[in-house]
Order: sequence, then C-alpha cells, then structure tokens
Amino acid sequence: MDIFDLIVIGAGPGGYVAAERAGMLGKRVLLIEKEELGGVCTNWGCIPTKSLLNSAKMYDHARNSEDRGVKATAVSFDLSTAMTWKQQTIETLRSGIQFLMKQAKVTVVRGEATCLDAHHVQVADTVYQTEDLIIATGSSPVVPPIPGSDLDHVMTSNEVLTLKELPESMVIIGGGVIGIEFASFFSTVGVKVTVVEMMDEILPMVDTEFAKLMRREMKEVDFHLSCKVTKITSDAVHYVDAQGVEQSIAAQQVLMSVGRRANTQNLEALHLDIARTGIVVDEYLKTNVPHVYAIGDVNGKSLLAHSASRMADVVIAHLYGERKQRMRYHAIPWAVYSNPEAAGCGLTEQAAKEQGKEIVTATVQMRANGRFLAEQGKRSGGLCKVVADKHTKVILGIHLLGSYSSEIIWGAASIIESELRIQDVKEVVFPHPSVSEVIKDALFSIDHTL
Amino acid sequence: MDIFDLIVIGAGPGGYVAAERAGMLGKRVLLIEKEELGGVCTNWGCIPTKSLLNSAKMYDHARNSEDRGVKATAVSFDLSTAMTWKQQTIETLRSGIQFLMKQAKVTVVRGEATCLDAHHVQVADTVYQTEDLIIATGSSPVVPPIPGSDLDHVMTSNEVLTLKELPESMVIIGGGVIGIEFASFFSTVGVKVTVVEMMDEILPMVDTEFAKLMRREMKEVDFHLSCKVTKITSDAVHYVDAQGVEQSIAAQQVLMSVGRRANTQNLEALHLDIARTGIVVDEYLKTNVPHVYAIGDVNGKSLLAHSASRMADVVIAHLYGERKQRMRYHAIPWAVYSNPEAAGCGLTEQAAKEQGKEIVTATVQMRANGRFLAEQGKRSGGLCKVVADKHTKVILGIHLLGSYSSEIIWGAASIIESELRIQDVKEVVFPHPSVSEVIKDALFSIDHTL
Repeated sequence: MDIFDLIVIGAGPGGYVAAERAGMLGKRVLLIEKEELGGVCTNWGCIPTKSLLNSAKMYDHARNSEDRGVKATAVSFDLSTAMTWKQQTIETLRSGIQFLMKQAKVTVVRGEATCLDAHHVQVADTVYQTEDLIIATGSSPVVPPIPGSDLDHVMTSNEVLTLKELPESMVIIGGGVIGIEFASFFSTVGVKVTVVEMMDEILPMVDTEFAKLMRREMKEVDFHLSCKVTKITSDAVHYVDAQGVEQSIAAQQVLMSVGRRANTQNLEALHLDIARTGIVVDEYLKTNVPHVYAIGDVNGKSLLAHSASRMADVVIAHLYGERKQRMRYHAIPWAVYSNPEAAGCGLTEQAAKEQGKEIVTATVQMRANGRFLAEQGKRSGGLCKVVADKHTKVILGIHLLGSYSSEIIWGAASIIESELRIQDVKEVVFPHPSVSEVIKDALFSIDHTL
Repeated sequence: MDIFDLIVIGAGPGGYVAAERAGMLGKRVLLIEKEELGGVCTNWGCIPTKSLLNSAKMYDHARNSEDRGVKATAVSFDLSTAMTWKQQTIETLRSGIQFLMKQAKVTVVRGEATCLDAHHVQVADTVYQTEDLIIATGSSPVVPPIPGSDLDHVMTSNEVLTLKELPESMVIIGGGVIGIEFASFFSTVGVKVTVVEMMDEILPMVDTEFAKLMRREMKEVDFHLSCKVTKITSDAVHYVDAQGVEQSIAAQQVLMSVGRRANTQNLEALHLDIARTGIVVDEYLKTNVPHVYAIGDVNGKSLLAHSASRMADVVIAHLYGERKQRMRYHAIPWAVYSNPEAAGCGLTEQAAKEQGKEIVTATVQMRANGRFLAEQGKRSGGLCKVVADKHTKVILGIHLLGSYSSEIIWGAASIIESELRIQDVKEVVFPHPSVSEVIKDALFSIDHTL
C-alpha cells in the first residue's frame, strides 16, 4: 500500500495549494481530483468568468470610447472566440498547476475518493494510507426545487460557461457575486438581462450604499428585488413581487445563481460533524476527527478561492510549520469583477454597528480622484468608504466601488491585518495619480489632523 | 497689509495640499499661483498624460481584441477629441481644487510672487505678510543647448500636450518616465516613435531587468541607447551612437524630455542655499532661512507629485501638528503609466547591493498569474521582483511590470513603510484572481516556509 504523509482530496485553490506547500517542504503528498486540476476556481469559476468579463470590457471600450477619441464602426462580439480564449486560459493555468505539483513532487491521482477512515482513502480499486488528511472537496451550485428548474434552458454557473450562442434575453435568479458578474458580462455584450433577487438588495456582503450604486451603474440590467421566483416555464420566469403580486418576465435563458452547497459525499465513514453550511472546523481547520482537516468551500466558512488557499497555508503551518497560525476571517478581501468593479475588506459600516462597535467613517466620491476622472469621466459613479474604531482609530474596513478596486484592495487587507491606525496610513505615500488615493482622501475626510 | 499665518507660493500638488491642510486646521493661508491651480501635475503633467494614455489604451483595445472576441472595423484615433476630453478633465480637477481652497478658507491670489524677505511676499503692487512661508514653485523642463533645439518642431512636455495633429514620426530625446509615457502614447496611436537615450538603459530608477522587458514589450518603439544627440535639423535628429559613429533619424517632430530644473526665480532676497538640484532642505523641509520651507520639485529631492504632497503634510505637521514627522524617502512609490505599466517602491536589487546590503530576492513571471493570463494572454511579458533583507527578512523593495502595477503599488508602500517582514505578508490574504497576487508568489519563491 502507498503510504503518504498527507492526502489531499480536491485540487482546487485549497487542495492544490496545500499539496504544493507540503510537497515543497519535503513531505510525501497525494492529491486526488475527480475532475480537473484547479477545481471550480480555475475551470468553472474565478478564471473563466474573469476571462469573459475582460472580453466584455474590451468590447465596451471598442464601442464606447468615442468621447476619448476612439472611433470604431461595426463593433461585434463573437462569443465562440471569447470562449476559445477563456478555454486556452484555463488550459494554460491547469498545465501550470500540473507543473507546480511536479516541482513539489506531489503524486496526483485522478478519480473519485472515498474515505475509509482518517488514514485510508480509496480511489477505484486502490487504497492509499496517510498520516494526515485534508478534505478540500469544494462546493456545487444549489438548484432549488422551483417548478421548471429542470428545464433545458435553466443553467447554473457551470453550464453557462459552455454556451454556444448568446440568448436574446436572460433572467438571472440570485443577485450575489456570481449573479452580478454574469449580469455584467451578458448585459455588456448585448443580452437583455434581468436579475431577480429574493432579498431587498443585491450583494449581501456589500455596504448598502455601494450595492445601490452598483445597480445604478449597471444601467443595462433590470433589477427586481424582494422578489421570490415561483415557477420557470419554457419562455418566462414567474415570481411574486415585494407587494405580493404575481409577475413574470420573458426569458430565453435562465441562470440559477442562488448559492452553493458543500460537497460532503463519500466522507460518511469518517463520522465528521457536518453543519448545514459544511464540515465543522476549528480555527486550525481541524474537524472533530483527529488528523482530518477541512479547507475551502467544504467547511462553509468563507466561500472564496483565496480563503481556501489561506486555509491551506494555515493547515500546512499547523502540521509542519515552525509556528502555528490561526485562521482569521476579519481581513479577507472580496472583489466583484463586474463593470464597475467593487471590492472590500473588513467590516462594513452596518456590520460594525451590528457588532456594537463605536466607529468613525468617511465616504468619498471617486469622481474627485484625478485618475478616475481622467479615465471614467465625471458622470461615472464610484465610492470609497473607510470604517475605523472611534477610540483606537484602528482601521476596520475599506470598501471600494470603481475601476481597479480588485487590484487596490490587497493593500487594505495588509493594513487591516496589521491593525494600522488612521494616522499610520495618512503617512503612507500613495502614487499620484492613482485611484488608490481615494483611500487617503477618505482618511483625511475622517479628520484633518496631521 | 494683509497678514497670514502661512503663505504658500505655487499651487501644485505640494502647494495646494499644504494650503488645504493648513486651512482645514483653521490657519489664515494665502496661496499664490502665477499660472493655473494644480500646477504642472494637473495642467501639463500627471493628469493630461494619464488622460491621453487612457485614450490610447482604449484605442489599442478597440484594435487588438479580436482574439478576445471583439471585432471592430475602421478603428481610428481622433487626437482633437482626445485632447478635448483631456482638457475637460483638467478643468474639472482645477474647479475641484478651487472648491477645496474655498472649503479650507484659503485666500488664492493669481500672479507672480516675489519674496522680499522670509515674512513678506509681493504680488504685483501688493505686499503680504506671513509668519511662515512655503516655497512650492516646482520645476520646468530643461532644454539643453543642442544646436537646433530652438526649432519650431522641437517641443517639451508642455507644448506636446497642445499638438493639433499627430505627426508621422517623432524622436523623443530622453528615456525617463516622461519620455517613455509619451513614447507609449504616440506609438500606440500610430506615430513612428524613436527614443534616443544618452545612458545605457531607459528609466534610471527601475531595475535593469524591468527596463529591458519594458523596451521589449513596447514593440512599436525603436530605442537607441548610449546615444548622444549632437544636432537637430528641420527633418532629422543627429546623434553619436555607442560606437562613436555619427547617425541620424528622420523626425517630423521632436520631444525633448531630458530632465527638469527647479524654479528658483524671484527668491533672491531670501538668500537661500540653492544647490544644483534645487533649494537645500532638511528632513523637515526647512531651508537655511528660519520660517521658510521648500517642498516639491523645487527642492529637487524627489520629483514626483505625491512626494510634493507628502512634503506638504510633513511641513504642516511640523508647523501645526501635535507631533513632528520627518520626510522619509525610502517608501515613496513611483509608476510609469505606459502600456505595459511599471511601478515600484523601495530598493531595487542593484540599489540594495550598491548600499552593501545583504539581500534575498525573487522574481516571478506575471504570465503564471491567473488574472494576468486571462486578460493579457501567455505571450505578454510581466514581472514582479521582491527584495528583502537577508537577515531580518524585512521587505525593502517591491517592483512590478504589467497591468495594474500603478494601482497595486500603494500596498507595497504601506508594507515598506510599516517594515513588514516576508512572513508577515505571507499571512496577508490577497484576492483571487488578481495581478496583486504575484507579490505573494514572489514571497513564497524566496522561501517555502510557512
């Protein structure tokens, strides 16, 4: 029987990073994947959507830059070429992960893993033995039992990535990050998009002001909030609106993006504690079973690729590092790669208040920012909000809506993780002109002292 | 006679920020400007160039996105429309600065200031009295005494921003930041551009590897390094090449971007110490004359808009703050807004070695980064290099070449300012997928420990 220091089940951004780190530290590692290296992130999530969203952005630039001096006639979008580019990106990244696994001397086995106990995992007819086990099996789209949700034109985020032709109209059920990114993509390339959301606002993790502005900036998309879908038929989505009135919207295609569910199949023999949201873990990502860890979407703590990778680091540090680390969730950034982008890190104003914190905040308009104005013009909306502790002045949250947000936000993660205060960041020199300067402006809006 | 707490001469990003900060703290402030609010940065520098470079980027996207699914026929660039957009940006920002001055109750006087002594400044027939004086008069382009440099088709960065038509060909003398940004703009919109640089590499502050890659990525531009211009004629630029051979390049237009010189006129009565590079100042930006400070380009310490603004903060903190601050130069980021962008903060590998530091470094290719690959494709070059102290592991420098560099780099400034170590930043969660993740990858390339 092959004996390993570590078996990792699932090769997404949790699993492959854990395998790589352990392998680079000289451990004997087995990585088991039933589908593709890179998991949902590389193959059906982060990467393909960002590739398509970039194509949509280029299309928008080609069509709508006349006031910047760019004239183009007969601009058209070819979905199949965009899909080919996307597919090449995925394949290149998959090869990259394969190369990393080779470099880290990780054994990769393709197939469905079944856990026999904490130290034995079976794939097809082979049983592998291990000292420690990491479950990184991810999550899958939820398809709620709405009548008609099994019709051919109803897709999840998986199937929508293999569309051959753009539909004329699409209803997106669910206004979370996935729904909003697809709404941005499809509406930009000319599909009539309607988002139907059960809650009273889109993007639940986002500051309310920001969510509102996002809806306003996504001019081509119709949003129906506080609406509950009751039925899908071959040409329409039926729902009950906020007033309790039955309504319907014609839809050639329907995208279901109402949430994701932890993949906990084939783990029964481990007798893990599993909650509604996923496998229960502690701050070291340990499950109730000794030697078994659960990272990434499968533990339901933070359904983000980079959270999974961070969890991988925490487990590997716990197992083999010189110094234990704890998984902390307060400084994990998020980004929505729609047009405009949004990103944030730390507490929103609402969340801070709900936690009973005494805070100071400031919100600044991006159109006062030199680069934003030079590139986006004065009719474009954008915001930056900073939330800080009223007494210690430690920065608790930084939130952005506007161009480059997703690339600016890592600095916020670093600041919040380091517990810097308003005064500390006022002394940081931001490059001019850059959109990132809005953060400094927000800090000086809180108070003008030096 | 009008009496002020503070007179500031020059309303660029040094002067207007100083005036604003002091005004917001309740001081009576006079800001004197002989041209336009915002200074070179807003009117003839950072902002107009970024506006034009953005137009060029849109043009590039419209022309070169077919492999992403975007087809456009008959794409053309209209310089006058791009110039109009640029001008609107400038005017909006100028109004913004005017509003800020009003809000801060700063008195703004237009005209040329002459210093009578440390406490008296004359504009036209009026003499103003002040407790303290800040000189923020900036710098002007140097025009070296090359025969022919006074010909009509030879411009500096000022005049080039008012061009009415694109020339067919342009020679840019000087491969510093200004030269490279204009080379990027003009070459992208179809002008045949040649850069002639006296030194053996472009962009003197940049890591050599990065400068080389920048030249390679700017495919449309011809670079002639180690070449000394000897003469400009109506249709050509003549130079002596690295081998000492006389050469010439045909040029319909010539841009002279060989450096900038401190504006120290009308200050004679102050008897300031003035070095070749500018007014001599200490770490509080104090000159040799009590109550007189010099900030921004005029002191020659760091010719960057954001350095000037930071110096403004340091002086205002010195004059009115609760706690003195020192001007530090080691964590000031820079950015080149060419296509591709480059940005950096802290020591390059070469600079660290010249200082005798024992360092560790790692360089990673951007094409291994998910977002970079998804957007730029695998044939695009990009780099990230991190430099850290070998013993303390404190991060000394972060350098980027590739998309979004200018918006990513502020986080590096924060990290270097905070003296974070490799291990600290390994624990920071970077959003996925983002180009910013290359920094984390570089840190793990230095060593794989957790």
